[in-house]
Amino acid sequence: MKYLEWIDGGVTAPAGFKASGVHAGVKSSSPPDKLDLALIASNVPSVAAAVFTRNAVKAAPVRLSMERAANRELQAVVLNSGNANCCAPNDMENAIAMSDAVAQLLAIPSERIAVCSTGVIGQEMNIGAILDSAPKLVRSLGRESSHSDSAARAIMTTDTVKKEFAVEFELGGKPVRIGGIAKGSGMIHPNMGTLLSVLTTDCAISAELLDKVLRNAVNESFNRISVDGDTSTNDTCVILASGSAGNAELTLDEDYGSDSWKFEDALCAVCAKLAIAMAGDGEGATHLITCVVDNAANERKAESIAMSVIASSLVKSMIFGCDANWGRVLCAMGYSGETFDTERVGVTFSSAAGEVEVCRGGRGLPFDEALAKTVLSEHDVTIRVSLNEELEPGECPMCMCWGCDLTYNYVKINGDYRT
Amino acid sequence: MKYLEWIDGGVTAPAGFKASGVHAGVKSSSPPDKLDLALIASNVPSVAAAVFTRNAVKAAPVRLSMERAANRELQAVVLNSGNANCCAPNDMENAIAMSDAVAQLLAIPSERIAVCSTGVIGQEMNIGAILDSAPKLVRSLGRESSHSDSAARAIMTTDTVKKEFAVEFELGGKPVRIGGIAKGSGMIHPNMGTLLSVLTTDCAISAELLDKVLRNAVNESFNRISVDGDTSTNDTCVILASGSAGNAELTLDEDYGSDSWKFEDALCAVCAKLAIAMAGDGEGATHLITCVVDNAANERKAESIAMSVIASSLVKSMIFGCDANWGRVLCAMGYSGETFDTERVGVTFSSAAGEVEVCRGGRGLPFDEALAKTVLSEHDVTIRVSLNEELEPGECPMCMCWGCDLTYNYVKINGDYRT
Repeated sequence: MKYLEWIDGGVTAPAGFKASGVHAGVKSSSPPDKLDLALIASNVPSVAAAVFTRNAVKAAPVRLSMERAANRELQAVVLNSGNANCCAPNDMENAIAMSDAVAQLLAIPSERIAVCSTGVIGQEMNIGAILDSAPKLVRSLGRESSHSDSAARAIMTTDTVKKEFAVEFELGGKPVRIGGIAKGSGMIHPNMGTLLSVLTTDCAISAELLDKVLRNAVNESFNRISVDGDTSTNDTCVILASGSAGNAELTLDEDYGSDSWKFEDALCAVCAKLAIAMAGDGEGATHLITCVVDNAANERKAESIAMSVIASSLVKSMIFGCDANWGRVLCAMGYSGETFDTERVGVTFSSAAGEVEVCRGGRGLPFDEALAKTVLSEHDVTIRVSLNEELEPGECPMCMCWGCDLTYNYVKINGDYRT
Repeated sequence: MKYLEWIDGGVTAPAGFKASGVHAGVKSSSPPDKLDLALIASNVPSVAAAVFTRNAVKAAPVRLSMERAANRELQAVVLNSGNANCCAPNDMENAIAMSDAVAQLLAIPSERIAVCSTGVIGQEMNIGAILDSAPKLVRSLGRESSHSDSAARAIMTTDTVKKEFAVEFELGGKPVRIGGIAKGSGMIHPNMGTLLSVLTTDCAISAELLDKVLRNAVNESFNRISVDGDTSTNDTCVILASGSAGNAELTLDEDYGSDSWKFEDALCAVCAKLAIAMAGDGEGATHLITCVVDNAANERKAESIAMSVIASSLVKSMIFGCDANWGRVLCAMGYSGETFDTERVGVTFSSAAGEVEVCRGGRGLPFDEALAKTVLSEHDVTIRVSLNEELEPGECPMCMCWGCDLTYNYVKINGDYRT
């Protein structure tokens, strides 16, 4: 087996998990084949960790799930699309009712269920449709790839592709798996969560270590993408660890052993795949943009500059137009809040079609405009910025962030989202 | 005479100022009737104050003008559109050459001239065209309205309307005037400057007071608008005070006298008119959006929340689509970084076509969708947010910020800006 092997199965790949997705009709205007209610459940109470939106306005399901995740033990996550259940009449009552219905059918305490919602803010949720569909949702649970697929589809809103990945690796001779699904297309900007994502693993791991590893993984993946700079009221990322893999339990000991690193690496890989899939599927996007900031004094500075570039409307519009107007990259770097020597900055655009260096020592270089157009016409483009700074001891000089271009369709999608 | 009277004449309205605007051909592709070089000059050395971009990448003319404005005495401002003279070969040499040429023709020291540039970043400026046109620029100086008009037009880039206002008021029986021109359409976001603007006044005023009043006025006008969240490398706002009005000199004394307040009021009024004109003329805009946050504990909080709403891509897209999706207003408030009680928030949309209350106590209200559509279809729309907080002693509960919608044309304009 390779160090990390990508496998099928999403959240049902790890041992001990089932999933389902059904059509409940949360949004009256959605077609009858649109799945909109999902459930991921573990056979046993699982060790759990979660991160939530930093938005001061938190949806009722976020507040409920925060409370329940604080116990560090969960057994299921129920999710709906079509309504955010935020700032809406009876929002907390409805979030509780949704988990109570599932709890009763699964015969587990409601406190072991996290709830996630995504969709329009401020409209009362059609809780009747959800309660009516709960028996079907629970009956449909299964551990095949197709069950994870249904759950991944049921949480999509303006997403155009489902986001689902799973990975296998070895800990002390035992195969261990991590799987994940996610949704996210608009209202995407770092500051925790930035999406709905449910992750599962069969790894035996302590609650403290799981919490720490999840935070690290989210910081290096979901918190490094931006679609539109809007941090949602509903962002949630939950991981459940069933412990069924039979490995020696990973714990937060002082030397943070190599098996823990291996688990963190694998979780980061799954989260990064989901995050990149979200950035590339940004509302209306025609390009996935990767910004690499390198040769920085430290990683924090590299990250802050890369995020500023990725989030700039002018940079995003320029990539949409396949126009190598690199001055906008320098401009966005300049308002990142970081200090750097402009006279040392280099900028290069690249893609599968080639590479074009446009700026060196903070000054424009003559470049082949036709080649630049060709390079930027690819779907996946990279903006590589070099700060040419001296590396601080013990630091990493590089960070990679992901975003998408700003297009007519972003405006169109968001000009009439409710209708 | 009314307390404040709006008058014609722009920067040439105050006594002692001349202006001109000519075609130099800075950008080879610009049509022969596009004015692109402007000059505003005082007959005498003037008291001066200025604010500049906070972007860490500062264009050469910004760095040059910062140095010269530190002397608090200026006599002229020379400006070009078509090239930002930023991160470009020979940028500082060219900024100096531009002011030297004008200085020689005006027979004043080059140190008394501020330089402003706006346009593409990173391309070498056609300094030959500017030097060749300097004699024509100086010959064209005049004190008629038409001269201010030419200067205002010469600094336009993607602007669709010129921005030019002047006001008259009385200090100790003497008529005093303030005039201003500005440009700005993209790369507009607070953090000082956010535009090019030249203001003139014939008021006799000390350098210290002028500096203080300008900073206050900019904070309450230009720093309260956002078009796209991008803070430019070239933002500059300069004011020259010739002292020709004959009023008793205003100074920074301890009680900040009522005449000083009157001057500050008038300057704020001119800056606000210019700022609102910029927001309404944002790149591709079809709506001017005013966000009023009221019943806040203090003005700083009201401002921070209003700016967060105005700058949200999702709010901007929603106004473009005339869709009363008010949840996005709450979402943007929530990530402003301010704390507030969601359960007390009220939101109302209004315009010349009427008013529609959509949220009270943090919950959606049933509202007339057809009326909401009609209200939001007007060019000027207002989003009024009430926090219903207790006012802190000595504080102002309200702030107003301005922005524009996000449209297909913003994307189009910025997808191929260079070509």
